[in-house]
Amino acid sequence: MVSEEDIIRFFKRSDPNVILGSGDDSALIRPKRGREIAVSTDMLVAGQHFFIETDPCKLGQKALSVNLSDMAAMGANPRWATMALALPESLIKVSSKWIKEFARGFFELADLHQVALIGGDVTRGPLTICIQIIGEVEQGKALRRSGAIPGDDIWISGKLGNAALAILCERQKIKLEPEELAECLDSLLIPVARVSLGRRLIGLANSAIDISDGLLADLGHILEHSNVAATISIREINRSAIIEKYLSRPHVINCMLAGGDDYELCFTVPKKNRSKIDKISQETGIPLARIGEINEGEGLVVLDAQKKPIILEKTGYVHFPST
Amino acid sequence: MVSEEDIIRFFKRSDPNVILGSGDDSALIRPKRGREIAVSTDMLVAGQHFFIETDPCKLGQKALSVNLSDMAAMGANPRWATMALALPESLIKVSSKWIKEFARGFFELADLHQVALIGGDVTRGPLTICIQIIGEVEQGKALRRSGAIPGDDIWISGKLGNAALAILCERQKIKLEPEELAECLDSLLIPVARVSLGRRLIGLANSAIDISDGLLADLGHILEHSNVAATISIREINRSAIIEKYLSRPHVINCMLAGGDDYELCFTVPKKNRSKIDKISQETGIPLARIGEINEGEGLVVLDAQKKPIILEKTGYVHFPST
Repeated sequence: MVSEEDIIRFFKRSDPNVILGSGDDSALIRPKRGREIAVSTDMLVAGQHFFIETDPCKLGQKALSVNLSDMAAMGANPRWATMALALPESLIKVSSKWIKEFARGFFELADLHQVALIGGDVTRGPLTICIQIIGEVEQGKALRRSGAIPGDDIWISGKLGNAALAILCERQKIKLEPEELAECLDSLLIPVARVSLGRRLIGLANSAIDISDGLLADLGHILEHSNVAATISIREINRSAIIEKYLSRPHVINCMLAGGDDYELCFTVPKKNRSKIDKISQETGIPLARIGEINEGEGLVVLDAQKKPIILEKTGYVHFPST
Repeated sequence: MVSEEDIIRFFKRSDPNVILGSGDDSALIRPKRGREIAVSTDMLVAGQHFFIETDPCKLGQKALSVNLSDMAAMGANPRWATMALALPESLIKVSSKWIKEFARGFFELADLHQVALIGGDVTRGPLTICIQIIGEVEQGKALRRSGAIPGDDIWISGKLGNAALAILCERQKIKLEPEELAECLDSLLIPVARVSLGRRLIGLANSAIDISDGLLADLGHILEHSNVAATISIREINRSAIIEKYLSRPHVINCMLAGGDDYELCFTVPKKNRSKIDKISQETGIPLARIGEINEGEGLVVLDAQKKPIILEKTGYVHFPST
């Protein structure tokens, strides 16, 4: 059996951005002057958000990534994280391999974004990962859901749908070629976390959200918080070659419109900044697609390839179905 | 079935200490200038840290309390919290009563300490509560484990052992009168969180820790981090009348020395501040007992009532026994 001390050791590091790291009753950090602090937390439960057999290295990345994505959506610079872990005996009974791999994945991504793990908690229990992330953002500049203004262009980053297509395939509702499934599983397990894009949108975008519940649901959040309406065109949404190939099959269009696990950004930008967004896309290599426009009023209109409004059933993943 | 939106609604409040609360991708807060930020997290898992039948109101209090206790041990002022919850269907299938009661307990304590809940996550899963707390502390003044100096008095707050005695009784290793068990269960379910005491120790104490693993283990952490030794006297440790009554029974002395769930503070103070600590005790009504002294060297000597060193087996709760 791996001891608690052993487990903690895998996660212990010194970091110049931390006054006092893990090992005391709390960590101590000092944010930069004039910055606001952005705080977010996500809990991933085995069987709900991932399969217990998931590659622990990829799981470590994903657990941090979904939190980084929240920082990206605020335009915040992620700097510190805490992690609470409940681990079943089965994972640590034989060796420390699982936890070592999990830590490796976590730190690979943390290092990339210069995020310091400043504390945590380890306990026995059904496999559960809870990460809290703390970032900094220029005072009054954070990208909120409530800032969209009629006339704004609506943009999305990346290509939507691959992650949801992987889930569809695992639920045996569609059959993919092995290499197609592998590509889609990568989108599911290693979501993108558009942190540097989020930082560059500060001062340019009026609102932003990360697409965790699905484009329609998350754009819906922007509309609701901003008291505006929108029209988007399906044709303009970037999708992978795999999605394109299977687009006429049942459910596949929903992967693109209602599958959230790609964790791309949806944001609204005044028209005058259009060329600046195109320039960001060129400079970063991130596909940025202008998919529609914010209007006055309420409601979301989705236009098909023939520019006709379509009616969709599923608008987003509901964690607790109310039926 | 209670929906996710309903659940979130129970936890949604506006708060003047928050720039942006829950409902966006992250919360936004602005710490006071010149303060360091103290961050801590604790995860409570049903079956590990509490029984699933536990009164949800008390559980809501306890979940916050163990985190407040970490702030207390740093001398920090707790200001903001996030909460991630995994809830089994059984608790929310019939009505929202459980979650309402849980929220009521949480906010009762949060309001008392003026802590704002700024965000969270709700998912389905085995009952798990993960709270992260964020506090402020004067720059360079936090009470660390590493600050104990030879010659310091060792102090503890409150009375030790009741919470562990409740566990001993529930494991049927001792029989208590019903009113005795009720008193001990209160200590277990509603630990104290000595926040105001911690604040008053800033500038007076050289080190502090909250007693979550047991006095011997936690004082041991101070000794290890400070590279010092200590001698304490059992006779000086404050204990309840119930502990006193059963002290000669098997395991009961361990409740006092190795039972951590009371969440009192252990702290070390230069002798010159002795009268100031006594004054704090008088003014706050919190029993503060001087139980020993920090020495040079290493190791912890525990003296019995006859001032003879005693040998103890169990020095603290180990979450993952390495045997």
